[in-house]
Amino acid sequence: MTQPVITFLSDYGLGNEFVGVCHAVIARRCAQARVIDLTHSIPRHDVHTGAIVLRATLPYLPDAIILAVVDPGVGTSGARGRRAVAVRTVDEDRLLVGPDNGLLLPVCERLGGIAEAVEVERSHERLEPVSATFHGRDIFAPVAAALADGAPLGSLGEPIDPADLRRLHISEAVVRPDGLELHVLHRDTFGNLILDGQMDQLAGIGIELGQDVSVRRGGKVHRATVARTFADVHPGGLLIYQDGLGMLALAVNRGSAAELIGAERHDELLVGSQ
Amino acid sequence: MTQPVITFLSDYGLGNEFVGVCHAVIARRCAQARVIDLTHSIPRHDVHTGAIVLRATLPYLPDAIILAVVDPGVGTSGARGRRAVAVRTVDEDRLLVGPDNGLLLPVCERLGGIAEAVEVERSHERLEPVSATFHGRDIFAPVAAALADGAPLGSLGEPIDPADLRRLHISEAVVRPDGLELHVLHRDTFGNLILDGQMDQLAGIGIELGQDVSVRRGGKVHRATVARTFADVHPGGLLIYQDGLGMLALAVNRGSAAELIGAERHDELLVGSQ
Amino acid sequence: MTQPVITFLSDYGLGNEFVGVCHAVIARRCAQARVIDLTHSIPRHDVHTGAIVLRATLPYLPDAIILAVVDPGVGTSGARGRRAVAVRTVDEDRLLVGPDNGLLLPVCERLGGIAEAVEVERSHERLEPVSATFHGRDIFAPVAAALADGAPLGSLGEPIDPADLRRLHISEAVVRPDGLELHVLHRDTFGNLILDGQMDQLAGIGIELGQDVSVRRGGKVHRATVARTFADVHPGGLLIYQDGLGMLALAVNRGSAAELIGAERHDELLVGSQ
Repeated sequence: MTQPVITFLSDYGLGNEFVGVCHAVIARRCAQARVIDLTHSIPRHDVHTGAIVLRATLPYLPDAIILAVVDPGVGTSGARGRRAVAVRTVDEDRLLVGPDNGLLLPVCERLGGIAEAVEVERSHERLEPVSATFHGRDIFAPVAAALADGAPLGSLGEPIDPADLRRLHISEAVVRPDGLELHVLHRDTFGNLILDGQMDQLAGIGIELGQDVSVRRGGKVHRATVARTFADVHPGGLLIYQDGLGMLALAVNRGSAAELIGAERHDELLVGSQ
Repeated sequence: MTQPVITFLSDYGLGNEFVGVCHAVIARRCAQARVIDLTHSIPRHDVHTGAIVLRATLPYLPDAIILAVVDPGVGTSGARGRRAVAVRTVDEDRLLVGPDNGLLLPVCERLGGIAEAVEVERSHERLEPVSATFHGRDIFAPVAAALADGAPLGSLGEPIDPADLRRLHISEAVVRPDGLELHVLHRDTFGNLILDGQMDQLAGIGIELGQDVSVRRGGKVHRATVARTFADVHPGGLLIYQDGLGMLALAVNRGSAAELIGAERHDELLVGSQ
Repeated sequence: MTQPVITFLSDYGLGNEFVGVCHAVIARRCAQARVIDLTHSIPRHDVHTGAIVLRATLPYLPDAIILAVVDPGVGTSGARGRRAVAVRTVDEDRLLVGPDNGLLLPVCERLGGIAEAVEVERSHERLEPVSATFHGRDIFAPVAAALADGAPLGSLGEPIDPADLRRLHISEAVVRPDGLELHVLHRDTFGNLILDGQMDQLAGIGIELGQDVSVRRGGKVHRATVARTFADVHPGGLLIYQDGLGMLALAVNRGSAAELIGAERHDELLVGSQ
């Protein structure tokens, strides 16, 4: 029999015991489960970045339960609060556990959508007393561990309509007459701006690797090079490249594109050949 | 047979190879052992915080050997130095390995005290030559791995009297006529002040969730709200809440309680209804 | 059958999903492989420090495949670029995977040199499309996982001559008439200067533990104590000690030797008894 695997993503960071306690809780409930820490460095409370990273890394994940906790609404359950959910996808029967705040939806859409969903806030697997702030430990990790141990999804909570799950707006690049309109998905720790397009969309409007392009932001125009790596431009030079997750990104070799361009998340940029 | 588990806590941080080398050493001695990293972000040399985190996370740990290394006295063995020990608890026969500086005692007291203790400084399991500064690698990890491999505790060193183990003073909240006297156990990276009381002690003096209270520190009085989560107070507002480990904590929503109150570890606060 | 182990060192840091994605890729290719993270905190692009840490930690590693990625030349394959390689050592038949930039050679020399080497840039195990910047995920991790799964080294790429692998100059301490000439291998995060000598080389020129010595750097002379631990000198005092990896290091108790001495990597120091 193969060992069950849980892939774990969160915004807990590694500067405290939160991740370790979740590992411990999983080991108590399902001793044979293996946990792969995808990352715990999602910016705090940034559901949007968490959803994008989860969706972008999917092709590299083993056939594993996904435990994802980026949860600014923790402790706000009830009429106006967020729910805690576990879902099964249409394709591949993948199981995911996390808050119902949009974090899980984008990756599920890559897996054909959601076939079955349960609300697990009051699951019999949860640890009592449930704390107000640490549902990763008290609800999500125990439910993921129960799934790893073979518990049927339907036994872990009340069935809910997958259509009712909260969606997150993730922007997409748009082809315009004068170029490709891109939006900043997030700014990484180096000041690189991760954008919502792919290299083949640039190719679709005739922009090739190695070409110089214009980057319009607000009233200003910057010159950038479409490059494979940072080393393809001189220090201080602006480049557009495809990052490790397949997304276009804007960077300055040995500098910060965010500072040079003055752009932040959700901002719009227009990349054109002139 | 179940796989042996070692739960590992230290102040080594993740910015170097110390934790990885300990994992490697354990794998050499006991290939089947699994290591769960509880946390390696205990503030450097802060035995007090290490002991509190270990005690507070105990209910979430699997039945595992505990390897704990927060060891400012490393390299000072001998007449005036600290000893290296391995112990077995009265309840549950749990095994713990670490320095004899008080780190292990509080969690052991939650497990009925210590039934058996050995000094492992000169254990035949240690790696030669023993370095002056890295006993985690040279003594503690090999001894924990030997225990995981089934070596009897008594075979790993010289028996010592559990009553001689060094104790650590961990303060406790005290009920006063005018409120609950609390002490700051530690200040976390966000400026939250973790206190030595629980929510039921506030309830015991008639203070309920949602209530406004006074927080006296030195000659000053602050107003705070007893709340479930940060979102229950406005930005900049002071709150008292129960943290993920079940301890009362003082925080400022989007701010720093440590700065607002001007308090640090060991400081005394009085929380009252007036 | 014993579980295959991969020891993983990189400069990816833990502030992103790179390490987690490599773990996931390994789990997809070889579900039974266990990965031990030696460290991911090698300073970015610092092949030199990566090579030294790998060589210094070898005695503590289990019999495992070594996956090492510190790769400033990623994406520069071809005539002037670096190759991706997998090698087998003369002693112990150890397998190592990484860039051909000198990172792997020093540890291989401790294992009798390299018996067999293959270039894996175009290995059938690599993940398509190979990104320009993340060969850890697309080439090195899949190749290491295939080796863990039992694939013969020769099946993973084109054979190359081990003598053609790129070497890295790692300095060594030199005995001079007036003392021991040492070089700074790297500066750690605390400002300690790790040097290229060992304690027995000091002993060889008559300098013993506890002795005061001179440290010459440029035209200046500093006084230091040869000590076992920081606590052996007063706060602010300069000491030479043997660090956890067995190397001599220069430090200031509660201060920064790098700042006091004004020295950085590759700088030369002369330690003498006068």
